[in-house]
Amino acid sequence: MNTTLLSAAANQARGLAMDAVHACSSGHLGLPLGCAEIGAVLYSETLRYNPDVPKWLNRDRFILSAGHGSMFLYSWLNISGYDLPIGELKNFRQLHSHTPGHPESFETVGVEATTGPLGQGIANAVGFALSGKRAAAKFNTADHVIFDQHVFALHGDGCLQEGVAKEAIAFAAHVGLDNLVLIYDSNDVTLDAMADVTQGEDAEQYFKSQGWDAVTVDGHDLAALSTAFSKAKSDDNGRPKVIIAKTIIGKGIPEVAGTAKAHGEGGAKFVDEARKNLGLPADEHFFVSAEVRAFFAAKKEESKKAYAAWEANYNAWAAANPALATELTESVSHAVPSDLSARIPAFPADYKDATRSAGANVINAVAKAVPNFITGSADLYGSTKNYIKDGGDFSATNPLGRNIWFGIREHAMGAICNGIAYDGIFRSSGATFLVFADYLRPSIRLAALSKLPVTYIFTHDSVGVGEDGPTHQPVETVSGLRVIPGLDVIRPGDAEETAGAFISAMNRTDGPTALILTRQAIPLMNELSVEERRDGVIRGGYIAKKESGALTTILLATGSELQYAVAAATELGDGVRVVSLPCFERFDRQSAEYRESVLPKAVTKRVAIEAGVSGLWWKYVGTEGKVVGIDRFGISAPGNTVFKELGITTESVVAAAK
Amino acid sequence: MNTTLLSAAANQARGLAMDAVHACSSGHLGLPLGCAEIGAVLYSETLRYNPDVPKWLNRDRFILSAGHGSMFLYSWLNISGYDLPIGELKNFRQLHSHTPGHPESFETVGVEATTGPLGQGIANAVGFALSGKRAAAKFNTADHVIFDQHVFALHGDGCLQEGVAKEAIAFAAHVGLDNLVLIYDSNDVTLDAMADVTQGEDAEQYFKSQGWDAVTVDGHDLAALSTAFSKAKSDDNGRPKVIIAKTIIGKGIPEVAGTAKAHGEGGAKFVDEARKNLGLPADEHFFVSAEVRAFFAAKKEESKKAYAAWEANYNAWAAANPALATELTESVSHAVPSDLSARIPAFPADYKDATRSAGANVINAVAKAVPNFITGSADLYGSTKNYIKDGGDFSATNPLGRNIWFGIREHAMGAICNGIAYDGIFRSSGATFLVFADYLRPSIRLAALSKLPVTYIFTHDSVGVGEDGPTHQPVETVSGLRVIPGLDVIRPGDAEETAGAFISAMNRTDGPTALILTRQAIPLMNELSVEERRDGVIRGGYIAKKESGALTTILLATGSELQYAVAAATELGDGVRVVSLPCFERFDRQSAEYRESVLPKAVTKRVAIEAGVSGLWWKYVGTEGKVVGIDRFGISAPGNTVFKELGITTESVVAAAK
Repeated sequence: MNTTLLSAAANQARGLAMDAVHACSSGHLGLPLGCAEIGAVLYSETLRYNPDVPKWLNRDRFILSAGHGSMFLYSWLNISGYDLPIGELKNFRQLHSHTPGHPESFETVGVEATTGPLGQGIANAVGFALSGKRAAAKFNTADHVIFDQHVFALHGDGCLQEGVAKEAIAFAAHVGLDNLVLIYDSNDVTLDAMADVTQGEDAEQYFKSQGWDAVTVDGHDLAALSTAFSKAKSDDNGRPKVIIAKTIIGKGIPEVAGTAKAHGEGGAKFVDEARKNLGLPADEHFFVSAEVRAFFAAKKEESKKAYAAWEANYNAWAAANPALATELTESVSHAVPSDLSARIPAFPADYKDATRSAGANVINAVAKAVPNFITGSADLYGSTKNYIKDGGDFSATNPLGRNIWFGIREHAMGAICNGIAYDGIFRSSGATFLVFADYLRPSIRLAALSKLPVTYIFTHDSVGVGEDGPTHQPVETVSGLRVIPGLDVIRPGDAEETAGAFISAMNRTDGPTALILTRQAIPLMNELSVEERRDGVIRGGYIAKKESGALTTILLATGSELQYAVAAATELGDGVRVVSLPCFERFDRQSAEYRESVLPKAVTKRVAIEAGVSGLWWKYVGTEGKVVGIDRFGISAPGNTVFKELGITTESVVAAAK
Repeated sequence: MNTTLLSAAANQARGLAMDAVHACSSGHLGLPLGCAEIGAVLYSETLRYNPDVPKWLNRDRFILSAGHGSMFLYSWLNISGYDLPIGELKNFRQLHSHTPGHPESFETVGVEATTGPLGQGIANAVGFALSGKRAAAKFNTADHVIFDQHVFALHGDGCLQEGVAKEAIAFAAHVGLDNLVLIYDSNDVTLDAMADVTQGEDAEQYFKSQGWDAVTVDGHDLAALSTAFSKAKSDDNGRPKVIIAKTIIGKGIPEVAGTAKAHGEGGAKFVDEARKNLGLPADEHFFVSAEVRAFFAAKKEESKKAYAAWEANYNAWAAANPALATELTESVSHAVPSDLSARIPAFPADYKDATRSAGANVINAVAKAVPNFITGSADLYGSTKNYIKDGGDFSATNPLGRNIWFGIREHAMGAICNGIAYDGIFRSSGATFLVFADYLRPSIRLAALSKLPVTYIFTHDSVGVGEDGPTHQPVETVSGLRVIPGLDVIRPGDAEETAGAFISAMNRTDGPTALILTRQAIPLMNELSVEERRDGVIRGGYIAKKESGALTTILLATGSELQYAVAAATELGDGVRVVSLPCFERFDRQSAEYRESVLPKAVTKRVAIEAGVSGLWWKYVGTEGKVVGIDRFGISAPGNTVFKELGITTESVVAAAK
């Protein structure tokens, strides 16, 4: 190890962070300065990567969970030779730069995950590690190892205080993710204050209680870091590893180092003197020395050789295992059979069950058609019914399992699904009761922002849940999800619409989909063909019952209330149309012509019915329209009783339309 | 200890649960059966309570965090003599009963907290314990101890797996809540499966790593439980306590006991035989023996004597400390000075700062006027600016502190604020960045459902956040909060509207309020008087700029976009009115006449502007109207740049209105 050069590299990385933060007068200096030696070791020797092939399937993954320290990542990506030139660092946090304030996976080459909301990155890393374990089990053969990557995540006290991280940490050990290495930037400082103002846990003991290996090192000691990282990578003992690196936040700016003031941009005013002390030239900002450039150029050549060797091995593997190779290629490209719908059997005409049960049939057909599809549940498989039969359970001893038992850890489930989706080899999905979508909402938001094709299976929708009462009856949750940009929310109105909902989710590769399913049985809408219903869902909205005379009135509905709208239309007579609108977002993406054909502007007499809050319906019913909804919390009583008590009935629709 | 009688009582409590669950064929038997001995000890000797004065200020609080086991609570409330007759137990989970599927604080006497969503109750209990510590420090005197209650919470593996619980557990030890006792119903089973399918942590070691005392006992051994509970109550050692009670889930129904099948109603079909084995009469359901009734009647008499003694002490205290007594009475009744607005100084006419900064002034005036008001921040005091000056910091050594340093634990913050609010002595509030409202959303929902007067201070709203980028820019968060029934969401448009927002929150005692404040400076709307703006907010919406000619167009806005609507109105000319609509919910509660006076139906040319998603605005602008909004995620760049890039400008409003 060339400690002289790596020390210089670390200080130059510090300089890049100082210069970038100083240039825009915003951002966070604490971590890039405090973790400079960690970066130097990671990118010089620990991580396996090829800057020219940033998506190398067998690269080590590095996730900066403490996303506010983004200049750490940008500096080391630049130094190690990724396509992130100094000009981008000069434009840190500016419009249209590739160096946003927090790392965004879709914005910058080499950024594995969008981070910043604390705790998420740790749980994302668990998802990456799970994906790596499963990929190795699935694709490696006795003759060829295609996957043996490790997953590193760097986090601080902030991430570790978050509940989502603690859920993920418990899960990671339980499923034996020994390919996961957390680096805990333990600097005893949080944004507001010294960390001891808010925390007192014994971190080593905590990690050990969860089944982790834990070791504490000096975070500025290059050799100690090197040893710890090497040991963590080589120790395939079934336990995830944490390296507690004691660091000095803001190291390099003595006026603020080691204090909360170092966290943000507070130290920026002292950078001239600090740069001098670090041996950086006063007249050249964004400085990286020729020696450091040469060192990392050589490292890059080595990396390219390693990549070439892997590629040769991969090609030999592909030649020997063509079916596996095709499966891997299709998995990575998110390919879905074009005849997916044909592979999902139509439901018998007299089928009457909950859409969660219909979903059980559909998901098993999907799982057969899409081999990289995996699913999990937050301790509710028996209720959410998304279990893949014969798929096996993912565990330390069965990493091939397609069913993930997340435990009662909804938030970690969401963030782990994101990690799997970022990794891009498997299609992830997770299930819980709809009302608990709130528990994973921060992860849903990040999936939408980062365009991840995660599928959420949220069952037990609406007051139809019944006896469990208002704590378990989502009345606002569907609307709460609909306002998230980029998230498709589909609430199917019968079993065939449920098939359409899954098809829609699987064919969407640029964002997440939430499927909203009932606990209670609802009838099939057999007046329409299977295809009409499935295709209707894909369009988001369609005519579920056409008027038989001149159109006077439009009834709109989703999910379990579709049956009431249809019954009301029959009662109201010739001029009444029913529009099924299972997915607002998909409908809004249709052409103006299509939308006009379904909801003609001229017809202002409109009534919507949905067993939930009414606020978002006014866009579709207009100020002349009416909404039969539930603008209050529910009641503990049998579901049918609650529906009647709260006026979610055919009669209410008829009365509103008269 | 009369173990024979208490064993009988435990079995009769088991019988009540069996009969109730059997009657409605739903609910959860596992916990009421597995924890029957725990209930017998708690209600016979451990807890201090008076069933006739359920809100006794110095009672011990008991929170059933595992709310699905509600029949545990209902059975013991009945047996111990609370106003919950057997008839209510017979109506378990039925319409209009006081025995809903999960405990609801507003529905049943003796139920301290609404529970069911897992993990929440543990964090609520931390809030109760904090409230107890602060009440003792505030109101006890050298001569009189008015408060020395303990807080017990019963939880299972489910609660403990949840991140919110782990955040709260870390916090509780850090602030020295040795008046808190968790009882961990450790039965090695979760809903879906044996617990070892999803968990492997060493619970004792985990709790100790967090700074707790932990002890493991046989959860069916009355004497062992008694000893453990007594020790936990007597040990004022600065550490919270957990009693890990090893239990057999569903004990009493051998066919399912000890397995996941025991969790729900699965055992109900075996109850006839089970009841017989427990010594319950075959011909009498909902049976409680005369001996058990007599024992608990005697216990109640004792409790009433203890209460009377406390009351005498309280009266002596009140006589000796009239000012303190008045303060306590006013605190418990949530009294707020009727002249609160007069106590908040008007801002200087040239004030131009962020509403978060205006909020800093207002909250300090509120804190002076309302002595029981306390506040906290999730490691963001420096940014959320809600610090009460001279209020001190709450800690183990300063339980009088009015500022709570929650750490980076937003979810626990929400649930702890709920606990404080349930306790009802202090008015709680908590702060973080608006985008992280998602992290505590499950707790916000429960505050709204349970009508708790919690105030959320959410700063850094909209894309005005700027450089931190889309991970930190809430575009959908305000709308996401607006859909929660019972939650007031107020987004003030200048410093005086900010004062009005705080006044609205403080005067609302039947539900929570979210205050949405800017990071960036915005001007005062000086065309209107201070009173007009403050009162306007209290009404939710008002005319912020009246048309000077015949009304043709209405512009609507909230928060930082109000300035653009006003500027656009000036540019557009005589017939244009600007309506400030800082709180949809308050506006919707006004009379139809008032609403019509602000938004006359006849005027359909309407344009709304808000730097967020547009969906909920259509209710106010109608299908003829337009919304200038942001239906996408934001961008990392300086705030003003992002506003322009996304079209949130005066020009956009003018163009839309033309």
